[in-house]
Amino acid sequence: MTSYIGRLNAAILRKRNSVVVGLDPRFADLPEELQSRYRNQGDSLASRAAAFEEFSKRIIDVVAPLVPAVKPQAAFFEELGPAGCSALAAVIQHARQAGLIVICDAKRGDIGSTAEAYARGYLAGEDPMAAPWGADALTVNAYMGRDTLQPFIDVAQQRGGGLYILVRTSNPGSGVFQDRVSDGQTLYRHVAAVVEQINVETRGTEPYGSFGAVVGATYPQEIVELRAAMPHTQFLVPGYGSQGGTAEDVAAAFDSQGLGAVINSSRGIIFAHKRAPYSQQFGPSDWESAVAAATRDMIADLGKHVAMA
Amino acid sequence: MTSYIGRLNAAILRKRNSVVVGLDPRFADLPEELQSRYRNQGDSLASRAAAFEEFSKRIIDVVAPLVPAVKPQAAFFEELGPAGCSALAAVIQHARQAGLIVICDAKRGDIGSTAEAYARGYLAGEDPMAAPWGADALTVNAYMGRDTLQPFIDVAQQRGGGLYILVRTSNPGSGVFQDRVSDGQTLYRHVAAVVEQINVETRGTEPYGSFGAVVGATYPQEIVELRAAMPHTQFLVPGYGSQGGTAEDVAAAFDSQGLGAVINSSRGIIFAHKRAPYSQQFGPSDWESAVAAATRDMIADLGKHVAMA
Repeated sequence: MTSYIGRLNAAILRKRNSVVVGLDPRFADLPEELQSRYRNQGDSLASRAAAFEEFSKRIIDVVAPLVPAVKPQAAFFEELGPAGCSALAAVIQHARQAGLIVICDAKRGDIGSTAEAYARGYLAGEDPMAAPWGADALTVNAYMGRDTLQPFIDVAQQRGGGLYILVRTSNPGSGVFQDRVSDGQTLYRHVAAVVEQINVETRGTEPYGSFGAVVGATYPQEIVELRAAMPHTQFLVPGYGSQGGTAEDVAAAFDSQGLGAVINSSRGIIFAHKRAPYSQQFGPSDWESAVAAATRDMIADLGKHVAMA
Repeated sequence: MTSYIGRLNAAILRKRNSVVVGLDPRFADLPEELQSRYRNQGDSLASRAAAFEEFSKRIIDVVAPLVPAVKPQAAFFEELGPAGCSALAAVIQHARQAGLIVICDAKRGDIGSTAEAYARGYLAGEDPMAAPWGADALTVNAYMGRDTLQPFIDVAQQRGGGLYILVRTSNPGSGVFQDRVSDGQTLYRHVAAVVEQINVETRGTEPYGSFGAVVGATYPQEIVELRAAMPHTQFLVPGYGSQGGTAEDVAAAFDSQGLGAVINSSRGIIFAHKRAPYSQQFGPSDWESAVAAATRDMIADLGKHVAMA
């Protein structure tokens, strides 16, 4: 079995970039063609779920040759009820078949056997069929304590899966609790220390372990600080693009081999058809070309600041 | 529209107790009759989901005349994939039709429009059909910050729904982050202060607001401390019974009217057929009588320590 980090880094080196395309479908932002077609099928949760599934699969087909990974946001699918959950499962399997690493962004967290149930549901690891939602990795919330991470870690290790634990999130109010200082360090540094320790204990011969940290691009100073504090922890960096983080901001997350982080963009890529210059360049119907162009532009932008070995 | 806390307190006063029955189905713990019947239907995720649905609905039918609320644990349903999600939706609707308040224990948490999507998916509020999973209230995790609670609060207020924000959880390792002291107070007290403030601002003429706090029964001293610190916040107390919390421990969560808290028991009630004295008293086939007896015993046990007005 190959570890999550082993498979992820192989994908990064093969694609020569660390871009993660966030699959955050919202019906009102879908290309007009899709909106009208599915609206005509009766504007039910099931038809919206079918629209999300088609949209996400087509995005995947566009970006699969370009990037190592995608990150579906579970919430937008769950908003549509069980039909949305089925669409999410189908989207994840489609991405796996296309050779992409899939990070399911579900931010789960609970105790004991409950945490294990979430892990078994979402964290398939190397074999996409090992869980109903066949993700390689899952985002999790550690507020409940180190012991609540263990069931997720155990399932991940059994299956070659990975986790991304929320350390420093990208929202404006993230500091309210995360910046609180105790024993001379912020809360996010205490969470970071726990995550780093997990990777020290589990990474084997890899430079990084399979238990990453979510570190928002909107706090560039904290990326620098956390990179130093977590030398064996890979970062998942949200907040690039629409939320204001730049390639220069995120460059500090990477090592000299171009490894150590993956950078997510969601709206900036999947809804490229709605924003300049892509909207003018491709028009409303050729939205897949807009997605491809926005993806290539992000890869190029990152490439200016991150050297690949 | 009646507020969540208004509807919950009416149910508590009608049933004369504050017991919440946690619906945490696990296939290996189901009554033998159900296990063998559904195993014979092919041991698929779908057949297990059907078993969970039947089991949960039959629990609901037993406890609906006795208690004010049930708390399905989303994780055990999600472990079974989309079929489990459908079962969860059906179980919630069944409980609502039986007149029970439903607290969906999903511990969601995310930023902005993502948080709103979770809220719209789970938080139906007064009208059970207003969301695909028609819960009255939802458990949420505030690690990401006060701003990430706002979309949940907004949807809850639009629909007459409630939230329970994780403050002090019942697991042995909960203190690793929650007990960290900054500005002279533990992290859980800082979270508590935010939650209390939300209730002060939103409760209107009710003594408590609709935005509760999860406070574990396994930390009785913290129940006392938090009750004093959060006079307008209703508590959801897990950890009674199987996790070691006693009726005496949780009594401090209540006011002199017998309001201010709901006390959850999951395994102790739903798997009563597996433990003394109920296993001997009722035998394996009459498991519903075991559930009824365990529920009545918990109500009586709480009644010794909590006076209802």
